[in-house]
Order: sequence, then structure tokens, then C-alpha cells
Amino acid sequence: MTPDRVAAVIDFLALADRLKHVERRGRTVGPDGADRHENAAEHCWNVALVALLLHREVADPPELGHVLAMIAAHDLVEIEAGDTFAYDEVHILTQAERERAAADVVFGRLPPDLSTRLRALWEEFEEGETPAARFAMACDRAQGFLHGVIGTGHWRHEGVSEAQTAKRMDPARQVAPVFEALIAALYDRARAGGMFAAPLP
Amino acid sequence: MTPDRVAAVIDFLALADRLKHVERRGRTVGPDGADRHENAAEHCWNVALVALLLHREVADPPELGHVLAMIAAHDLVEIEAGDTFAYDEVHILTQAERERAAADVVFGRLPPDLSTRLRALWEEFEEGETPAARFAMACDRAQGFLHGVIGTGHWRHEGVSEAQTAKRMDPARQVAPVFEALIAALYDRARAGGMFAAPLP
Repeated sequence: MTPDRVAAVIDFLALADRLKHVERRGRTVGPDGADRHENAAEHCWNVALVALLLHREVADPPELGHVLAMIAAHDLVEIEAGDTFAYDEVHILTQAERERAAADVVFGRLPPDLSTRLRALWEEFEEGETPAARFAMACDRAQGFLHGVIGTGHWRHEGVSEAQTAKRMDPARQVAPVFEALIAALYDRARAGGMFAAPLP
Repeated sequence: MTPDRVAAVIDFLALADRLKHVERRGRTVGPDGADRHENAAEHCWNVALVALLLHREVADPPELGHVLAMIAAHDLVEIEAGDTFAYDEVHILTQAERERAAADVVFGRLPPDLSTRLRALWEEFEEGETPAARFAMACDRAQGFLHGVIGTGHWRHEGVSEAQTAKRMDPARQVAPVFEALIAALYDRARAGGMFAAPLP
């Protein structure tokens, strides 16, 4: 690696460190019982763990390296664009545009070959059409939902009804039977815990 | 997936969530300038990102899926054993024994096939003999060192000298020229920033 390339990689990693300070809506509960917002970096690791556990459960599994690379890169744009709560009906309208502008800034800091590679991983995830992207999407949504169920069931406090979550979780359930089984079990726990808000009248 | 298997995976992921509350010695600096301890879950994502950026820079790169799977699993034992600071000369003596006991507890919560798979990934990482494990080790150490350099240069406050860090970083430098180049550049920045403690007399 040339000194310029080394410097660019270090500077990119210094920028990427900020993902540890991008708060998501869900909350994680510590061993002392206190809870705090989960951040996007922790989420990315957690989605990778879900992928690792479920990868061999699907027929024709996508290549694991490609899936895990996509997961490691999928939220980097949030360094610039912030996290958009899945049930925020206002900010979600501008999410794609904000994240595309953020991608120019964030991936633009890398040497051209790495920039192209990470941006392609992010675009593949966003487009959600390849089997690898669909598997990664299902892991991403399953992690978010699971994190609410094992955490504070934050939907209730955010005014989010079960029907609203179903709109987000249905595409994940359809990816493979293992996601259907996992998400059904999580809904059982969420309902038993009274975690959803009442539907709007 | 059978209902029992689904329940075991959910319960394991609930346990794994605690990795977000295992503090490492290094500190991460937020956009407001305030710093806090990095946690082990964030670290695992960050190591995956380092691996993704450097993977194609080494001759004969190990299979990326295997490397990223190992990285996702490599710190799970810290849920039970806690993080051991690399320069803590007392606790490091019992680290291997504590982590082996922790592995029984943590991986023991998974269905047998997944338990075997994740434990094997952790053991391969710990043994550090395969090319994939050596690459992952170099990414792990490079991330820890980089995190200090872009963060608060915490060695100075911990009484850790440059020579002590060299003992830890030399094996990483030897894995491939890209790590040599990256770590040399980081040492330049650390020295310029006065980040190391004076050597003991």
C-alpha cells in the first residue's frame, strides 16, 4: 500500500468510528437493568451474528462472505444521514435522497477501488433484489425486531401498532421459512408482553 | 426450524446482546467531543470493516466469509469473562482459563451444531495458526491500535509505553506488508501525538 492509500484508509476508519455514535430507536438493556439506545455499529455486529446463525438454515444459501461484507457496510451512510426510525412516516419520505447524498460523502473518502466496492455493497443492500441482499435484509429486520422484544418493547412507547410492524416484517418473513418461524416466535413474545401500541381508531 | 431450535436461537441472541455492555479499555470520541469506552460489540463490527478494507491487499487472501464469521464470533466469550486489557499483566495470566470456562457457558446455550460451529471459529481465532486466523488477528490488533490513535491515545493515561505496544503489534505487522504499512503509519501518528507513556526506568 502506498502512503497515500494507507492515509486514506486510516482517515476513512476515523470517519467510520462515528457510526458508534449514531443512535437507533431501540434500546439495549445492560446487566444492571439500565437501558440506553442501541447504536448503529452494535446493530451491524448483531445483524452479522444473526446471519451467521441462520445462514445454513436457508435452501441455497448466498455466499457468506458477500452477505457479511454487505452487512458490515450497509449502515455507513448513517454517519452523515443519521438513523431513520422505520416507523417515522415523515423522515422516511426523504430517507433515500438523504442517504444517497450521504453515500457520496462517506464512500467518497475512500480510494476509488474501495469506494466502488463499498458503495456497490450498500446499493445492492438498498435495492434488495439479489438473494444475498434479501437474506441480509431479513437478518437486518429480524435483528431490529428481536432487539425490541428482548429489550424494552419500545413500539408501545413510540405509538407503533402491531399492524405497522407487520408491514415492515412481512418482506423478511417471505425470504425463507426460517425467518417466518423466527419472526412468528418473536410476535408471540411481543404480544404476550403487551409490547405494541393500540391501533389508531 | 423446530420451535425448540427457534427458542434456543432467540435466547442465545438475548444473551449475546450483553456484548454491547462489555467495555474495552479504549475510548471512542463522539461528534460532541465527549469520549466514552468502546464496547466489544462495536469493536467486532469495526474489526469486520478493517477486514473488508484490507482483504484484497494480501497475497492469497483467506476466504472472506470464514474471516468475517470468525470476527463476528471472536469476542462472545467476553460476555462471561469480560474484556481483558492487553497490557494488564495480572489478569492476562488467567485470561485463557477464564475464557475457556466462559466458552462452555456461552456456546453451551446454542443447539449442538451451532455450538460446535461457533466454538470452532473462536478456537481457530485463539490458536491463531491458520491464514484466516492470522489475518483476523492482525485486523483485530490493528483496529485496537487505530482506535487508540484516532481516539484519546489512552496508553499514556494507562502507563503503557511504546515498547509494550510493540510486543502486541509485532505479530500483526508480520502477517502481511499491508499491516506493516498501516501500523507504521499509526505509530508515526501516535508518536507525533505523544500518546505513549515513558518507558519504566
